[in-house]
Amino acid sequence: QPGRVILVGAGPGEPELLTLKAVRALQSADVVLYDDLVSPDVLELARREARRVMVGKRGGRASCRQEDINELMVELARAGERVVRLKAGDPMVFGRAGEEIERLVAEGVTVEVVPGISAGIALAAALGASLTHRDAAHSLRFVTGHAKSGELDEGLDWRGLADPDTTLIVYMGGRTAGRLAARLIAEGLPPETPVAFGFGVGQRGQRLERHRLGDLVALGSVPTDQPLVIGIGKVFAAGTPAVSVPAETATVF
Amino acid sequence: QPGRVILVGAGPGEPELLTLKAVRALQSADVVLYDDLVSPDVLELARREARRVMVGKRGGRASCRQEDINELMVELARAGERVVRLKAGDPMVFGRAGEEIERLVAEGVTVEVVPGISAGIALAAALGASLTHRDAAHSLRFVTGHAKSGELDEGLDWRGLADPDTTLIVYMGGRTAGRLAARLIAEGLPPETPVAFGFGVGQRGQRLERHRLGDLVALGSVPTDQPLVIGIGKVFAAGTPAVSVPAETATVF
Repeated sequence: QPGRVILVGAGPGEPELLTLKAVRALQSADVVLYDDLVSPDVLELARREARRVMVGKRGGRASCRQEDINELMVELARAGERVVRLKAGDPMVFGRAGEEIERLVAEGVTVEVVPGISAGIALAAALGASLTHRDAAHSLRFVTGHAKSGELDEGLDWRGLADPDTTLIVYMGGRTAGRLAARLIAEGLPPETPVAFGFGVGQRGQRLERHRLGDLVALGSVPTDQPLVIGIGKVFAAGTPAVSVPAETATVF
Repeated sequence: QPGRVILVGAGPGEPELLTLKAVRALQSADVVLYDDLVSPDVLELARREARRVMVGKRGGRASCRQEDINELMVELARAGERVVRLKAGDPMVFGRAGEEIERLVAEGVTVEVVPGISAGIALAAALGASLTHRDAAHSLRFVTGHAKSGELDEGLDWRGLADPDTTLIVYMGGRTAGRLAARLIAEGLPPETPVAFGFGVGQRGQRLERHRLGDLVALGSVPTDQPLVIGIGKVFAAGTPAVSVPAETATVF
Protein backbone atom coordinates (compact mmCIF):
# COMPACT_ATOMS: atom_id res chain seq x y z
CA GLN A 1 0.00 0.00 0.00
CA PRO A 2 1.55 3.28 -1.07
CA GLY A 3 2.26 5.96 1.50
CA ARG A 4 1.13 9.51 1.15
CA VAL A 5 1.69 12.91 2.68
CA ILE A 6 -0.97 15.19 4.07
CA LEU A 7 0.09 18.77 4.72
CA VAL A 8 -2.02 19.82 7.68
CA GLY A 9 -2.66 23.29 9.03
CA ALA A 10 -2.27 23.15 12.81
CA GLY A 11 -3.87 26.55 13.28
CA PRO A 12 -2.56 29.05 15.80
CA GLY A 13 -2.04 26.63 18.70
CA GLU A 14 -5.27 26.02 20.56
CA PRO A 15 -6.30 22.44 19.68
CA GLU A 16 -9.94 23.52 19.40
CA LEU A 17 -8.96 25.65 16.41
CA LEU A 18 -7.99 22.67 14.28
CA THR A 19 -10.49 21.52 11.69
CA LEU A 20 -12.19 18.16 12.04
CA LYS A 21 -10.33 17.08 8.93
CA ALA A 22 -6.98 18.00 10.47
CA VAL A 23 -7.78 15.97 13.58
CA ARG A 24 -8.80 13.02 11.44
CA ALA A 25 -5.51 13.23 9.53
CA LEU A 26 -3.53 13.33 12.78
CA GLN A 27 -5.42 10.35 14.12
CA SER A 28 -4.59 8.20 11.12
CA ALA A 29 -0.93 9.18 10.88
CA ASP A 30 2.02 6.83 11.14
CA VAL A 31 4.48 9.71 11.34
CA VAL A 32 3.98 13.38 12.18
CA LEU A 33 6.67 15.79 10.99
CA TYR A 34 6.09 19.03 12.82
CA ASP A 35 7.49 22.52 13.00
CA ASP A 36 8.88 23.95 16.18
CA LEU A 37 6.02 26.45 16.25
CA VAL A 38 3.36 23.73 16.55
CA SER A 39 2.04 23.57 20.10
CA PRO A 40 2.39 20.43 22.24
CA ASP A 41 -1.38 20.50 22.81
CA VAL A 42 -1.93 20.04 19.09
CA LEU A 43 0.58 17.19 18.89
CA GLU A 44 -1.43 15.49 21.62
CA LEU A 45 -4.21 14.98 19.08
CA ALA A 46 -2.07 12.67 16.97
CA ARG A 47 -2.62 8.92 17.03
CA ARG A 48 -0.87 7.53 20.09
CA GLU A 49 1.30 5.16 18.05
CA ALA A 50 2.39 7.87 15.63
CA ARG A 51 6.06 8.80 15.64
CA ARG A 52 6.54 12.52 16.17
CA VAL A 53 9.53 14.15 14.54
CA MET A 54 10.40 17.81 14.97
CA VAL A 55 11.84 19.05 11.71
CA GLY A 56 12.18 22.76 12.30
CA LYS A 57 12.20 25.61 12.02
CA ARG A 58 12.62 28.69 14.10
CA GLY A 59 14.75 31.74 13.35
CA GLY A 60 18.21 31.36 14.80
CA ARG A 61 17.96 27.76 15.97
CA ALA A 62 19.41 24.77 14.28
CA SER A 63 16.78 22.94 12.30
CA CYS A 64 16.53 20.62 9.34
CA ARG A 65 17.26 22.11 5.97
CA GLN A 66 14.25 22.29 3.66
CA GLU A 67 15.93 19.79 1.35
CA ASP A 68 16.29 17.29 4.18
CA ILE A 69 12.65 17.66 5.17
CA ASN A 70 11.61 17.06 1.57
CA GLU A 71 13.85 14.01 1.35
CA LEU A 72 12.53 12.57 4.60
CA MET A 73 8.93 12.92 3.45
CA VAL A 74 9.66 11.19 0.16
CA GLU A 75 11.44 8.31 1.90
CA LEU A 76 8.71 7.80 4.47
CA ALA A 77 5.95 7.90 1.87
CA ARG A 78 7.84 5.42 -0.31
CA ALA A 79 8.13 3.11 2.67
CA GLY A 80 4.33 3.10 2.79
CA GLU A 81 3.92 5.42 5.76
CA ARG A 82 1.00 7.76 6.21
CA VAL A 83 2.84 11.01 6.81
CA VAL A 84 1.33 14.15 8.28
CA ARG A 85 3.40 17.28 7.70
CA LEU A 86 2.05 19.55 10.43
CA LYS A 87 2.54 23.28 9.98
CA ALA A 88 1.52 26.13 12.24
CA GLY A 89 -1.38 28.20 10.91
CA ASP A 90 -2.32 27.41 7.32
CA PRO A 91 0.20 25.52 5.17
CA MET A 92 -0.39 27.76 2.14
CA VAL A 93 0.21 31.09 3.90
CA PHE A 94 3.91 31.68 4.53
CA GLY A 95 4.33 27.98 5.27
CA ARG A 96 6.95 27.03 2.66
CA ALA A 97 4.55 24.35 1.47
CA GLY A 98 5.25 25.16 -2.15
CA GLU A 99 8.70 23.59 -2.20
CA GLU A 100 7.49 20.52 -0.34
CA ILE A 101 4.55 19.90 -2.65
CA GLU A 102 6.70 20.36 -5.75
CA ARG A 103 9.21 17.82 -4.59
CA LEU A 104 6.61 15.26 -3.50
CA VAL A 105 4.64 15.51 -6.72
CA ALA A 106 7.84 15.30 -8.76
CA GLU A 107 8.56 12.03 -6.95
CA GLY A 108 5.09 10.71 -7.62
CA VAL A 109 3.99 10.86 -3.99
CA THR A 110 0.30 11.50 -3.34
CA VAL A 111 -0.19 14.81 -1.53
CA GLU A 112 -3.22 16.33 0.10
CA VAL A 113 -3.59 19.67 1.88
CA VAL A 114 -5.82 20.34 4.88
CA PRO A 115 -6.22 24.07 5.51
CA GLY A 116 -5.85 25.74 8.88
CA ILE A 117 -6.57 28.97 10.72
CA SER A 118 -3.77 31.41 10.00
CA ALA A 119 -2.48 33.68 12.79
CA GLY A 120 -3.89 36.83 11.17
CA ILE A 121 -7.35 35.31 11.09
CA ALA A 122 -7.00 34.23 14.72
CA LEU A 123 -5.94 37.76 15.65
CA ALA A 124 -9.11 39.15 14.10
CA ALA A 125 -11.25 36.70 16.05
CA ALA A 126 -9.46 37.42 19.33
CA LEU A 127 -9.91 41.17 18.93
CA GLY A 128 -13.37 41.06 17.42
CA ALA A 129 -12.00 43.15 14.59
CA SER A 130 -13.55 42.60 11.18
CA LEU A 131 -10.54 42.74 8.85
CA THR A 132 -12.63 44.11 6.01
CA HIS A 133 -15.01 46.38 7.87
CA ARG A 134 -16.96 48.28 5.22
CA ASP A 135 -16.23 51.64 6.79
CA ALA A 136 -12.52 51.04 7.29
CA ALA A 137 -10.98 48.67 4.74
CA HIS A 138 -11.73 47.41 1.25
CA SER A 139 -8.63 45.25 0.98
CA LEU A 140 -6.82 42.80 3.21
CA ARG A 141 -3.17 42.05 2.81
CA PHE A 142 -0.72 39.52 4.24
CA VAL A 143 3.04 40.06 4.12
CA THR A 144 6.09 38.96 6.09
CA GLY A 145 8.19 41.36 8.11
CA HIS A 146 11.39 40.39 6.42
CA ALA A 147 12.80 39.03 3.18
CA LYS A 148 15.22 36.09 3.02
CA SER A 149 17.97 38.52 4.05
CA GLY A 150 16.22 39.29 7.35
CA GLU A 151 15.76 42.90 6.24
CA LEU A 152 12.59 44.56 5.00
CA ASP A 153 11.53 43.25 1.61
CA GLU A 154 12.50 45.99 -0.83
CA GLY A 155 10.54 44.26 -3.55
CA LEU A 156 7.22 45.04 -1.89
CA ASP A 157 5.18 47.92 -3.26
CA TRP A 158 5.49 50.05 -0.15
CA ARG A 159 3.31 52.80 -1.53
CA GLY A 160 0.47 50.28 -1.90
CA LEU A 161 1.07 48.86 1.58
CA ALA A 162 0.73 52.37 3.01
CA ASP A 163 -2.87 52.60 1.71
CA PRO A 164 -4.95 53.72 4.74
CA ASP A 165 -7.93 51.71 3.43
CA THR A 166 -6.03 48.43 3.51
CA THR A 167 -5.78 46.12 6.50
CA LEU A 168 -2.23 44.85 6.74
CA ILE A 169 -1.26 41.65 8.54
CA VAL A 170 2.44 41.19 9.12
CA TYR A 171 3.90 37.78 9.95
CA MET A 172 7.31 37.41 11.56
CA GLY A 173 7.64 41.16 11.97
CA GLY A 174 9.03 41.39 15.48
CA ARG A 175 12.58 42.16 14.44
CA THR A 176 11.74 44.71 11.76
CA ALA A 177 8.68 46.35 13.38
CA GLY A 178 10.34 49.74 13.82
CA ARG A 179 11.76 49.91 10.32
CA LEU A 180 8.48 48.66 8.87
CA ALA A 181 6.55 51.39 10.67
CA ALA A 182 9.02 54.09 9.63
CA ARG A 183 8.78 52.97 6.03
CA LEU A 184 4.98 52.93 6.01
CA ILE A 185 4.88 56.41 7.54
CA ALA A 186 7.40 57.66 4.98
CA GLU A 187 5.07 56.34 2.27
CA GLY A 188 2.14 58.24 3.69
CA LEU A 189 0.41 56.07 6.28
CA PRO A 190 -0.52 58.31 9.25
CA PRO A 191 1.51 57.70 12.45
CA GLU A 192 -1.75 57.48 14.38
CA THR A 193 -2.83 54.39 12.41
CA PRO A 194 -3.92 51.73 14.91
CA VAL A 195 -1.73 48.68 15.40
CA ALA A 196 -2.49 45.40 17.17
CA PHE A 197 0.13 42.97 18.41
CA GLY A 198 -0.88 39.38 18.92
CA PHE A 199 1.67 37.35 20.86
CA GLY A 200 0.93 33.64 20.67
CA VAL A 201 -2.58 34.47 19.52
CA GLY A 202 -4.92 31.51 19.65
CA GLN A 203 -2.64 29.80 22.17
CA ARG A 204 -2.60 29.48 25.92
CA GLY A 205 -0.94 32.61 27.27
CA GLN A 206 -2.04 34.68 24.28
CA ARG A 207 -1.37 38.38 24.75
CA LEU A 208 -2.91 41.25 22.81
CA GLU A 209 -1.59 44.80 22.72
CA ARG A 210 -2.77 47.93 20.97
CA HIS A 211 -0.37 50.60 19.72
CA ARG A 212 -0.11 53.41 17.19
CA LEU A 213 2.07 53.06 14.13
CA GLY A 214 4.23 56.01 15.19
CA ASP A 215 5.08 54.34 18.51
CA LEU A 216 6.63 51.38 16.73
CA VAL A 217 9.38 53.53 15.27
CA ALA A 218 10.77 54.30 18.74
CA LEU A 219 10.10 50.73 19.87
CA GLY A 220 12.40 49.42 17.16
CA SER A 221 12.20 45.67 17.39
CA VAL A 222 9.83 43.58 19.51
CA PRO A 223 11.81 40.81 21.16
CA THR A 224 9.57 37.86 22.05
CA ASP A 225 9.72 34.11 22.36
CA GLN A 226 6.11 33.81 21.22
CA PRO A 227 5.09 33.96 17.58
CA LEU A 228 4.04 37.54 16.87
CA VAL A 229 1.47 38.68 14.34
CA ILE A 230 1.00 42.40 13.76
CA GLY A 231 -2.19 44.00 12.44
CA ILE A 232 -2.03 47.51 11.00
CA GLY A 233 -5.04 49.56 9.95
CA LYS A 234 -8.17 51.39 10.98
CA VAL A 235 -10.02 48.17 11.77
CA PHE A 236 -7.74 47.78 14.80
CA ALA A 237 -8.82 51.10 16.35
CA ALA A 238 -9.12 50.90 20.13
CA GLY A 239 -12.75 51.86 19.59
CA THR A 240 -13.21 48.44 18.06
CA PRO A 241 -15.17 46.62 20.69
CA ALA A 242 -13.07 43.86 22.15
CA VAL A 243 -14.98 40.63 22.21
CA SER A 244 -15.05 38.21 25.07
CA VAL A 245 -11.71 36.50 25.50
CA PRO A 246 -11.36 33.93 28.27
CA ALA A 247 -9.69 35.74 31.16
CA GLU A 248 -7.23 32.99 31.91
CA THR A 249 -5.85 32.91 28.39
CA ALA A 250 -5.55 36.51 27.35
CA THR A 251 -4.78 40.03 28.36
CA VAL A 252 -5.98 42.96 26.32
CA PHE A 253 -4.19 46.25 26.86
CA GLN B 1 -28.66 33.46 32.82
CA PRO B 2 -27.69 36.00 30.18
CA GLY B 3 -27.62 35.03 26.54
CA ARG B 4 -24.71 35.58 24.29
CA VAL B 5 -23.81 35.53 20.62
CA ILE B 6 -21.02 33.53 19.03
CA LEU B 7 -20.09 34.49 15.48
CA VAL B 8 -18.96 31.24 13.95
CA GLY B 9 -17.04 30.67 10.73
CA ALA B 10 -18.73 27.84 8.85
CA GLY B 11 -15.81 27.44 6.48
CA PRO B 12 -16.31 26.75 2.78
CA GLY B 13 -19.05 24.13 3.14
CA GLU B 14 -17.58 20.71 3.83
CA PRO B 15 -18.46 19.95 7.48
CA GLU B 16 -14.99 18.46 8.02
CA LEU B 17 -13.53 21.93 7.45
CA LEU B 18 -15.17 23.39 10.54
CA THR B 19 -12.98 23.83 13.59
CA LEU B 20 -13.65 21.77 16.70
CA LYS B 21 -14.58 25.02 18.42
CA ALA B 22 -17.15 25.82 15.77
CA VAL B 23 -18.74 22.41 16.14
CA ARG B 24 -18.84 22.82 19.91
CA ALA B 25 -20.56 26.20 19.51
CA LEU B 26 -23.14 24.71 17.16
CA GLN B 27 -23.80 21.85 19.53
CA SER B 28 -24.54 24.16 22.43
CA ALA B 29 -26.70 26.62 20.48
CA ASP B 30 -30.34 27.43 21.20
CA VAL B 31 -30.69 29.34 17.94
CA VAL B 32 -28.60 29.30 14.79
CA LEU B 33 -28.92 32.32 12.50
CA TYR B 34 -27.34 31.35 9.22
CA ASP B 35 -26.56 32.84 5.87
CA ASP B 36 -27.94 31.44 2.66
CA LEU B 37 -24.43 30.43 1.64
CA VAL B 38 -23.98 28.07 4.60
CA SER B 39 -24.31 24.47 3.44
CA PRO B 40 -27.05 22.16 4.77
CA ASP B 41 -24.35 19.67 5.76
CA VAL B 42 -22.88 22.21 8.15
CA LEU B 43 -26.27 23.04 9.65
CA GLU B 44 -26.64 19.32 10.37
CA LEU B 45 -23.92 19.72 13.00
CA ALA B 46 -26.08 21.99 15.13
CA ARG B 47 -27.73 20.70 18.27
CA ARG B 48 -30.88 18.86 17.29
CA GLU B 49 -33.11 21.10 19.39
CA ALA B 50 -31.61 24.31 18.04
CA ARG B 51 -33.90 26.55 16.03
CA ARG B 52 -32.41 27.29 12.62
CA VAL B 53 -33.22 30.65 11.07
CA MET B 54 -32.02 31.71 7.63
CA VAL B 55 -31.32 35.41 7.72
CA GLY B 56 -29.72 36.08 4.39
CA LYS B 57 -28.06 36.97 2.21
CA ARG B 58 -27.37 36.33 -1.42
CA GLY B 59 -26.99 38.83 -4.20
CA GLY B 60 -30.30 39.52 -5.86
CA ARG B 61 -32.54 37.55 -3.50
CA ALA B 62 -34.72 38.94 -0.81
CA SER B 63 -33.09 38.62 2.58
CA CYS B 64 -33.16 40.24 5.98
CA ARG B 65 -31.75 43.71 6.19
CA GLN B 66 -28.55 43.95 8.22
CA GLU B 67 -30.39 46.09 10.77
CA ASP B 68 -33.02 43.41 11.26
CA ILE B 69 -30.39 40.72 11.75
CA ASN B 70 -28.68 42.87 14.37
CA GLU B 71 -31.97 43.51 16.12
CA LEU B 72 -32.90 39.83 16.15
CA MET B 73 -29.56 38.88 17.69
CA VAL B 74 -29.92 41.47 20.42
CA GLU B 75 -33.45 40.33 21.25
CA LEU B 76 -32.55 36.66 21.36
CA ALA B 77 -29.49 37.25 23.52
CA ARG B 78 -31.54 39.41 25.91
CA ALA B 79 -34.06 36.61 26.18
CA GLY B 80 -31.22 34.43 27.44
CA GLU B 81 -30.66 32.43 24.30
CA ARG B 82 -27.32 31.04 23.23
CA VAL B 83 -27.16 32.38 19.71
CA VAL B 84 -24.80 31.16 17.01
CA ARG B 85 -24.47 33.52 14.07
CA LEU B 86 -23.17 31.20 11.40
CA LYS B 87 -21.33 32.75 8.47
CA ALA B 88 -19.77 31.12 5.43
CA GLY B 89 -15.97 31.10 5.46
CA ASP B 90 -14.42 33.26 8.17
CA PRO B 91 -16.63 35.88 9.85
CA MET B 92 -13.89 38.54 9.75
CA VAL B 93 -13.14 38.30 6.03
CA PHE B 94 -15.85 39.97 3.95
CA GLY B 95 -18.45 38.68 6.38
CA ARG B 96 -20.07 41.94 7.49
CA ALA B 97 -19.31 40.92 11.07
CA GLY B 98 -18.12 44.41 11.95
CA GLU B 99 -21.58 45.93 12.01
CA GLU B 100 -23.00 43.00 13.98
CA ILE B 101 -20.30 43.10 16.63
CA GLU B 102 -20.58 46.87 17.03
CA ARG B 103 -24.30 46.67 17.61
CA LEU B 104 -24.09 43.74 20.03
CA VAL B 105 -21.33 45.30 22.09
CA ALA B 106 -23.17 48.63 22.14
CA GLU B 107 -26.15 46.77 23.62
CA GLY B 108 -23.99 45.06 26.22
CA VAL B 109 -24.34 41.61 24.70
CA THR B 110 -21.41 39.23 25.16
CA VAL B 111 -19.86 38.33 21.80
CA GLU B 112 -17.30 35.77 20.87
CA VAL B 113 -15.81 34.97 17.46
CA VAL B 114 -14.80 31.52 16.24
CA PRO B 115 -12.66 31.74 13.10
CA GLY B 116 -13.20 29.67 9.98
CA ILE B 117 -11.54 28.61 6.75
CA SER B 118 -12.07 31.32 4.16
CA ALA B 119 -12.79 30.38 0.55
CA GLY B 120 -9.43 31.70 -0.68
CA ILE B 121 -7.60 29.47 1.78
CA ALA B 122 -9.73 26.50 0.75
CA LEU B 123 -8.92 27.23 -2.91
CA ALA B 124 -5.21 27.07 -2.15
CA ALA B 125 -5.61 23.71 -0.39
CA ALA B 126 -7.74 22.27 -3.20
CA LEU B 127 -5.20 23.27 -5.85
CA GLY B 128 -2.10 22.55 -3.79
CA ALA B 129 -0.99 26.10 -4.56
CA SER B 130 1.07 27.84 -1.91
CA LEU B 131 -0.34 31.38 -1.94
CA THR B 132 3.00 32.84 -0.91
CA HIS B 133 5.41 30.61 -2.82
CA ARG B 134 8.86 32.14 -2.37
CA ASP B 135 9.59 32.13 -6.07
CA ALA B 136 6.27 33.61 -7.10
CA ALA B 137 4.69 35.89 -4.51
CA HIS B 138 5.77 37.94 -1.53
CA SER B 139 2.36 39.33 -0.76
CA LEU B 140 -1.14 37.93 -0.52
CA ARG B 141 -4.18 40.05 -0.99
CA PHE B 142 -7.94 39.62 -0.56
CA VAL B 143 -10.45 41.92 -2.23
CA THR B 144 -14.07 41.75 -3.37
CA GLY B 145 -15.04 41.89 -7.01
CA HIS B 146 -17.42 44.75 -6.51
CA ALA B 147 -18.12 47.76 -4.35
CA LYS B 148 -21.50 48.45 -2.76
CA SER B 149 -22.61 49.76 -6.16
CA GLY B 150 -22.03 46.37 -7.79
CA GLU B 151 -19.31 47.92 -9.97
CA LEU B 152 -15.55 47.57 -9.58
CA ASP B 153 -14.29 49.37 -6.50
CA GLU B 154 -12.70 52.54 -7.83
CA GLY B 155 -11.18 53.21 -4.42
CA LEU B 156 -8.81 50.26 -4.71
CA ASP B 157 -5.21 50.94 -5.66
CA TRP B 158 -5.37 49.16 -8.98
CA ARG B 159 -1.72 49.75 -9.74
CA GLY B 160 -0.81 47.88 -6.57
CA LEU B 161 -3.27 45.07 -7.33
CA ALA B 162 -1.57 44.61 -10.70
CA ASP B 163 1.74 43.73 -9.00
CA PRO B 164 2.88 40.46 -10.64
CA ASP B 165 4.49 39.38 -7.36
CA THR B 166 1.22 39.52 -5.45
CA THR B 167 -1.27 36.70 -5.15
CA LEU B 168 -4.74 38.14 -5.49
CA ILE B 169 -7.86 36.43 -4.15
CA VAL B 170 -11.14 37.89 -5.37
CA TYR B 171 -14.40 37.17 -3.56
CA MET B 172 -17.76 37.67 -5.24
CA GLY B 173 -16.08 38.45 -8.54
CA GLY B 174 -18.26 36.47 -10.94
CA ARG B 175 -20.18 39.43 -12.28
CA THR B 176 -17.21 41.74 -12.72
CA ALA B 177 -14.55 39.18 -13.74
CA GLY B 178 -14.11 40.58 -17.25
CA ARG B 179 -13.88 44.20 -16.16
CA LEU B 180 -11.54 43.26 -13.32
CA ALA B 181 -9.21 41.44 -15.70
CA ALA B 182 -9.25 44.31 -18.21
CA ARG B 183 -8.43 46.76 -15.46
CA LEU B 184 -5.55 44.69 -14.09
CA ILE B 185 -4.12 44.28 -17.59
CA ALA B 186 -4.44 48.01 -18.21
CA GLU B 187 -2.45 48.58 -15.02
CA GLY B 188 0.31 46.32 -16.23
CA LEU B 189 -0.46 42.75 -15.14
CA PRO B 190 0.44 40.44 -18.06
CA PRO B 191 -2.56 38.86 -19.86
CA GLU B 192 -0.88 35.45 -19.49
CA THR B 193 -1.06 35.68 -15.68
CA PRO B 194 -2.55 32.40 -14.40
CA VAL B 195 -6.06 32.46 -12.96
CA ALA B 196 -7.89 29.81 -10.94
CA PHE B 197 -11.64 29.65 -10.53
CA GLY B 198 -13.03 27.80 -7.55
CA PHE B 199 -16.76 27.12 -7.78
CA GLY B 200 -18.16 25.92 -4.48
CA VAL B 201 -14.64 25.15 -3.36
CA GLY B 202 -14.51 23.03 -0.21
CA GLN B 203 -18.05 21.82 -0.89
CA ARG B 204 -19.55 18.76 -2.48
CA GLY B 205 -19.58 19.37 -6.22
CA GLN B 206 -16.57 21.68 -6.03
CA ARG B 207 -15.24 22.60 -9.47
CA LEU B 208 -11.83 24.04 -10.26
CA GLU B 209 -10.85 25.72 -13.50
CA ARG B 210 -7.62 27.25 -14.74
CA HIS B 211 -7.55 30.23 -17.10
CA ARG B 212 -5.34 33.10 -18.21
CA LEU B 213 -6.11 36.64 -17.17
CA GLY B 214 -6.51 37.73 -20.79
CA ASP B 215 -9.22 35.12 -21.39
CA LEU B 216 -11.40 36.65 -18.70
CA VAL B 217 -11.81 39.85 -20.67
CA ALA B 218 -13.66 38.04 -23.44
CA LEU B 219 -15.48 35.86 -20.92
CA GLY B 220 -17.00 38.97 -19.36
CA SER B 221 -18.99 37.74 -16.40
CA VAL B 222 -19.07 34.23 -14.95
CA PRO B 223 -22.67 33.29 -14.23
CA THR B 224 -22.90 30.63 -11.54
CA ASP B 225 -25.18 29.51 -8.75
CA GLN B 226 -22.19 28.37 -6.68
CA PRO B 227 -20.06 30.75 -4.66
CA LEU B 228 -17.06 31.66 -6.80
CA VAL B 229 -13.60 32.56 -5.58
CA ILE B 230 -10.99 33.70 -8.09
CA GLY B 231 -7.24 33.39 -7.62
CA ILE B 232 -4.92 35.51 -9.76
CA GLY B 233 -1.15 35.21 -9.83
CA LYS B 234 1.87 33.13 -10.73
CA VAL B 235 1.23 30.68 -7.89
CA PHE B 236 -1.79 29.42 -9.87
CA ALA B 237 0.30 28.42 -12.89
CA ALA B 238 -0.90 25.20 -14.50
CA GLY B 239 2.54 23.86 -13.74
CA THR B 240 1.56 23.98 -10.10
CA PRO B 241 1.15 20.34 -9.25
CA ALA B 242 -2.48 19.61 -8.50
CA VAL B 243 -2.80 17.74 -5.27
CA SER B 244 -5.08 14.81 -4.71
CA VAL B 245 -8.70 15.86 -4.73
CA PRO B 246 -11.33 13.17 -4.19
CA ALA B 247 -12.59 12.27 -7.65
CA GLU B 248 -16.23 12.27 -6.67
CA THR B 249 -16.15 15.81 -5.38
CA ALA B 250 -14.04 17.74 -7.82
CA THR B 251 -13.06 18.25 -11.40
CA VAL B 252 -9.83 19.95 -12.33
CA PHE B 253 -9.59 21.34 -15.87
